[in-house]
Amino acid sequence: MIVTGREVINMSISLGLEDVFIKYTSLTSIDGEKGELRYRGYDIKDLVEHCSFEEVAYLMFYGELPKRDELEHFKSNVMKNYKIPENVKNIIKNMPRDGDALAIMEAAFAALSTEEYTWEKERDREKAAEIMGRALGIVSAVFRYRDGREIKDPENKGYAEAFLNACFDSGIDEDKIKAMNAALILYIDHEVPASTTAALVASSTLSDMYSCVTAAIAALKGPLHGGAAEAAYKQFLAIKSPENVDSWFNENILNNKKRLMGFGHRVYKTYDPRMLIFKELARKNAKTDEQKKILELAERLEALGVKNFGQKKIFPNTDYYSGIVFNEIGFPLYMFTTLFALSRVVGWVAHISEYVESEERLIRPRAIYIGPEKRDVVPIDKR
Amino acid sequence: MIVTGREVINMSISLGLEDVFIKYTSLTSIDGEKGELRYRGYDIKDLVEHCSFEEVAYLMFYGELPKRDELEHFKSNVMKNYKIPENVKNIIKNMPRDGDALAIMEAAFAALSTEEYTWEKERDREKAAEIMGRALGIVSAVFRYRDGREIKDPENKGYAEAFLNACFDSGIDEDKIKAMNAALILYIDHEVPASTTAALVASSTLSDMYSCVTAAIAALKGPLHGGAAEAAYKQFLAIKSPENVDSWFNENILNNKKRLMGFGHRVYKTYDPRMLIFKELARKNAKTDEQKKILELAERLEALGVKNFGQKKIFPNTDYYSGIVFNEIGFPLYMFTTLFALSRVVGWVAHISEYVESEERLIRPRAIYIGPEKRDVVPIDKR
Ligand SMILES: CC(C)(COP(=O)(O)OP(=O)(O)OC[C@H]1O[C@@H](n2cnc3c(N)ncnc32)[C@H](O)[C@@H]1OP(=O)(O)O)[C@@H](O)C(=O)NCCC(=O)NCCS
Ligand SMILES: CC(C)(COP(=O)(O)OP(=O)(O)OC[C@H]1O[C@@H](n2cnc3c(N)ncnc32)[C@H](O)[C@@H]1OP(=O)(O)O)[C@@H](O)C(=O)NCCC(=O)NCCS
Repeated sequence: MIVTGREVINMSISLGLEDVFIKYTSLTSIDGEKGELRYRGYDIKDLVEHCSFEEVAYLMFYGELPKRDELEHFKSNVMKNYKIPENVKNIIKNMPRDGDALAIMEAAFAALSTEEYTWEKERDREKAAEIMGRALGIVSAVFRYRDGREIKDPENKGYAEAFLNACFDSGIDEDKIKAMNAALILYIDHEVPASTTAALVASSTLSDMYSCVTAAIAALKGPLHGGAAEAAYKQFLAIKSPENVDSWFNENILNNKKRLMGFGHRVYKTYDPRMLIFKELARKNAKTDEQKKILELAERLEALGVKNFGQKKIFPNTDYYSGIVFNEIGFPLYMFTTLFALSRVVGWVAHISEYVESEERLIRPRAIYIGPEKRDVVPIDKR
Repeated sequence: MIVTGREVINMSISLGLEDVFIKYTSLTSIDGEKGELRYRGYDIKDLVEHCSFEEVAYLMFYGELPKRDELEHFKSNVMKNYKIPENVKNIIKNMPRDGDALAIMEAAFAALSTEEYTWEKERDREKAAEIMGRALGIVSAVFRYRDGREIKDPENKGYAEAFLNACFDSGIDEDKIKAMNAALILYIDHEVPASTTAALVASSTLSDMYSCVTAAIAALKGPLHGGAAEAAYKQFLAIKSPENVDSWFNENILNNKKRLMGFGHRVYKTYDPRMLIFKELARKNAKTDEQKKILELAERLEALGVKNFGQKKIFPNTDYYSGIVFNEIGFPLYMFTTLFALSRVVGWVAHISEYVESEERLIRPRAIYIGPEKRDVVPIDKR
């Protein structure tokens, strides 16, 4: 019971909206006990093994995996949006060169919303393909700009390959393309975390899709949400070498009670299934001595973490090895969260389309007033 | 009871988060039956009569109305942020000239988040003043750019005056400054509508303040939320002249069952107290024949609306006369929602600061899965 300035209220707030169900979904299901993640009924591992990112995106948007001709049609709709407009390039080039990569992506999406008015229900799948394409052009442009190089227009190829070729001038091989494709599938969706919730709220006012994605990026940007892969990788860099794992763990985690980054999850009480796949990828793609050293270090730290926290049901999560994979592909630390966003754009768009199509109700919670009772304004010189 | 692909669930969703309380607040209270709106216990009418926009903003951020020296100190912190950085001007100039004004504001806020990392609790009041200042610089720049004129750096004056002088080259008088000041106070806050909710979700990840405001703008942009003043005014333009009110109302509202824009409210079941003040302002500032005609038309339509819908507790809301006031000050239709945002920035920042300071819990609702059961991936050529 809350006694407010004006009335007695018998309600309490739903802190963090825990246990509040904001929507029904046919997109993603998580079994946190068994460590299972499925998109529309398909196991994540099965999808990574057999599908391209575009096939899984199609699955999310349309409900079924595409037939060959459906896939080709969808891919061509995505591809024709790879190239971003000149004004968006100029906008990116006017950002601080060392600015936050994800924030630059946020601004570019906002810029693209200037020519949009509202949600267009009839066109939402067309828009979904457009946004997927634009995301590729924007994120590769952000990377090249941050990296001090000219922005390159992407080629008309499959998503993972086109993206890596737009980012790098050389060094892209089949293994890297496969790893990128897998990472894109693994991050596609995870039900309704904060970023997806922010996008839902925006979509419920029938704001346009670019603005909804902008809202999602703004929420992803917070360190409690998008930044775990970066945080986990920074830990590896701080440890420096596999021999230091034990002493670092003792000092930081056991003695100083710091959190082990890349460990723990609100829903999973066992190994995050995405993490197991990222670990395989990290092993397969560790080629230089430095990469092998980081991997060895990470595996030792993982073993120690599981030994100490496994009984408490704290296990490595998806972000534990993903940074290593992104780094093996060639990306620096500051791009990790932006690469997460590149993939998650699909989940955001799939969830907001599902919301607008099925429920379409303005999201408008209430607050409980606990402030001062009625009072009169005192003129400034008598305060 | 919901039977999903995997389990039977005894829960249902909270559609639109109706009846969900997302936070406690000491900021704003609404009595929808009596038609009362108070900020921290002060009646909105009292504040409009006696205070400047900065005083009310200070009240929202600090909990009490400022003494003279506190106000001067606060104003100087706001003022020193009026002038926006050159790169943000360039970013605005790279937007489509006829782009949505609110979306350009959204992109400018996102651009300013590129140099921010996270929420800085110790600095949040300083940041609040900074953002208020920046909003003035951004919105006046957006207006001048959209209007085909050079962006002008604001002078170091009080908020309403500095804003109007930055927007217009001439024609600003005391009446207009007073009307602008009142409008800014009236739109400051309205508890937790969708835009504020989007900002809260972003702040709960400890994203930076600029990104949180960006998320709010993205949600405000939807026609179910920010666009009512524009919609109401468009109605007046369509009616053209007071003589047409009756026939237009019969045809559109009574026969074709269109909604009367600027009427109705989820919370108010009587006159919105802000609307009554806007109406007085509209009367006071109607000077040209055209303005007087629009006002006469609007008043006739209001009377007809109340006569027909009053029994159903549908009354004019804040947006009914605000567009008329904005237009009398000199602003075109396309700026109305952006002027709303200029003021509401204060409410957004006050709510997210209150949230982060008191609760600081990640907002993460759940979804109920109702999609397909487990299935296996069929290779593309066999689909
Ligand atoms: C993800 C996370 C926020 C989930 O948190 P949660 O479900 O709210 O769990 P809590 O924060 O309530 O933690 C529950 C207990 O486990 C412990 N714990 C959780 N994650 C831990 C970690 N990574 N390292 C050490 N201890 C951890 C907490 O200290 C707490 O212990 P206590 O009960 O003895 O006080 C949390 O595990 C975390 O901070 N992990 C590190 C950051 C990270 O990797 N995030 C990526 C998420 S995909
Ligand atoms: C603001 C608004 C969305 C509130 O809606 P709400 O609380 O969800 O109310 P509902 O939409 O459920 O409407 C309830 C009833 O009032 C009627 N009604 C509500 N607003 C009306 C309006 N502006 N004109 C005509 N009828 C209206 C509805 O048709 C409905 O009638 P019914 O019960 O006979 O079907 C709604 O009044 C509206 O659309 N107003 C016009 C837009 C506007 O001015 N918005 C600014 C809000 S600050």
